[in-house]
Amino acid sequence: MGCLGEHALRNGKLISASEVVLSATDRAVQSGFGVYESLRVIQGRPVYLQDHMLRLERSACGIEMKHPFRFDDLTKWIDVLLESDSIEKATLRVLLMGGDSPSLIVTAHPLLSYPDDWYRKGVFATTYAGERFLPRYKTCAQLLSYLALRDAQAKNAFEAILVDRYGYALEGTRSNFFAFRNHVLYTADESLVLEGVTRDKILKACECLGFSVVLEPISVSDIVSHRFDEVFISSTSMGAMGVCRLDDTLITSDFARTNAIHDLIRKWEVQALH
Amino acid sequence: MGCLGEHALRNGKLISASEVVLSATDRAVQSGFGVYESLRVIQGRPVYLQDHMLRLERSACGIEMKHPFRFDDLTKWIDVLLESDSIEKATLRVLLMGGDSPSLIVTAHPLLSYPDDWYRKGVFATTYAGERFLPRYKTCAQLLSYLALRDAQAKNAFEAILVDRYGYALEGTRSNFFAFRNHVLYTADESLVLEGVTRDKILKACECLGFSVVLEPISVSDIVSHRFDEVFISSTSMGAMGVCRLDDTLITSDFARTNAIHDLIRKWEVQALH
Repeated sequence: MGCLGEHALRNGKLISASEVVLSATDRAVQSGFGVYESLRVIQGRPVYLQDHMLRLERSACGIEMKHPFRFDDLTKWIDVLLESDSIEKATLRVLLMGGDSPSLIVTAHPLLSYPDDWYRKGVFATTYAGERFLPRYKTCAQLLSYLALRDAQAKNAFEAILVDRYGYALEGTRSNFFAFRNHVLYTADESLVLEGVTRDKILKACECLGFSVVLEPISVSDIVSHRFDEVFISSTSMGAMGVCRLDDTLITSDFARTNAIHDLIRKWEVQALH
Repeated sequence: MGCLGEHALRNGKLISASEVVLSATDRAVQSGFGVYESLRVIQGRPVYLQDHMLRLERSACGIEMKHPFRFDDLTKWIDVLLESDSIEKATLRVLLMGGDSPSLIVTAHPLLSYPDDWYRKGVFATTYAGERFLPRYKTCAQLLSYLALRDAQAKNAFEAILVDRYGYALEGTRSNFFAFRNHVLYTADESLVLEGVTRDKILKACECLGFSVVLEPISVSDIVSHRFDEVFISSTSMGAMGVCRLDDTLITSDFARTNAIHDLIRKWEVQALH
């Protein structure tokens, strides 16, 4: 029996985590011709595995990647990894590289989680001008996101929000982006941003909680002029997390709406395991 | 003594080529936070090494990558590789990955070369809509280029020319792009495209051969309406290579101007070795 991070999976085979390497001379590797997913393991089980597998397949289709892997198999392989390393909670990363010799790699990492305080008070985010290539898909074309997040972290911010050529704050480097005006939630529609697994649950939570949803992109100028009264980001790891400041604009809120959504989607995660 | 492809360099150390791997869990690798160069070795010596090293450094600076490598050292390391594997001619690929543990990898591959016929008759290229991220730098953000070239190759074309939102054919996936009208050569200026090492020699060759140069992007519609009478692409491997067809538009030419440029820049390469 191993422990978290000791093993990984390559093409269904359990290997030592140190063997999880990519060939530097593989053109697919060199070009970022790959797609990936991050998912949570809690209570020893992957959360919304089916949703993540569907999105991985959708991303692979989006860049017309051919590969020999069946996602039914992946489900079984993940079970082997969880059992082998006695994993109760973790963040799993599934990487599917295409090209002449496709590979499917699963690695397990400590479960990402954030202080309660951040949810109560909100986090600081910056903006960064740039548009993700093929934003609907979760591909390895991540240089923009890397540079944007590095810029944010240099300013002690938690996340960078990518702003497109029209001045819309579409999504974060690893999150979706939302803004409330009273009981109406605004967020960009699925043609412009990653169709987040958590984003989808958030839209469902809005229905339950009596919020309406308007699928329209959020302009930075509307945030700066305080036309929204609560702003938040979401991801698998974060759930829904309030944003109290965007660049120099303070967005004062108690994050009651965001945290109601957060609590509900986390409750659903646990329910989905049983 | 080895032979071409037997060894590679990692951070100055000669290693077996099979050991040239990248960690799949390194965030820089996952994000394509790297820059690279391809260069030619002929007569046992790298061509325009200084130019390529300068551009590698310019690309690294362009994405604010910190690394511990000195390019004087790289020159010596390359000599070790050339000697160790008795390399007379080759294409060298230099990859500089950033992040927490930067690595500088040099691999040697058979020298890329193309049939004489292609230079005489020109090659078929397609267009592909898309703008390279940070086009001035040679980064690992290559997914667009990968998809564009795959699309071209599926149509039996040799290269895909990337067309920006304004309808300009700026550059190929691995080449710069040029068009003649009589004795005037047009090509996009350095703010829009990669400052190719070969592109630079081409501009110098134009001076010698009496062609004027206009640094303006070339619109696809001008090619379709036959407002140019000779079109070509360039790269380190290709030199200058005529394009006889772009999508469905035939561009009839004897490529005399392109081949005069090609011959001159290849002559300079040899001269530069001595």
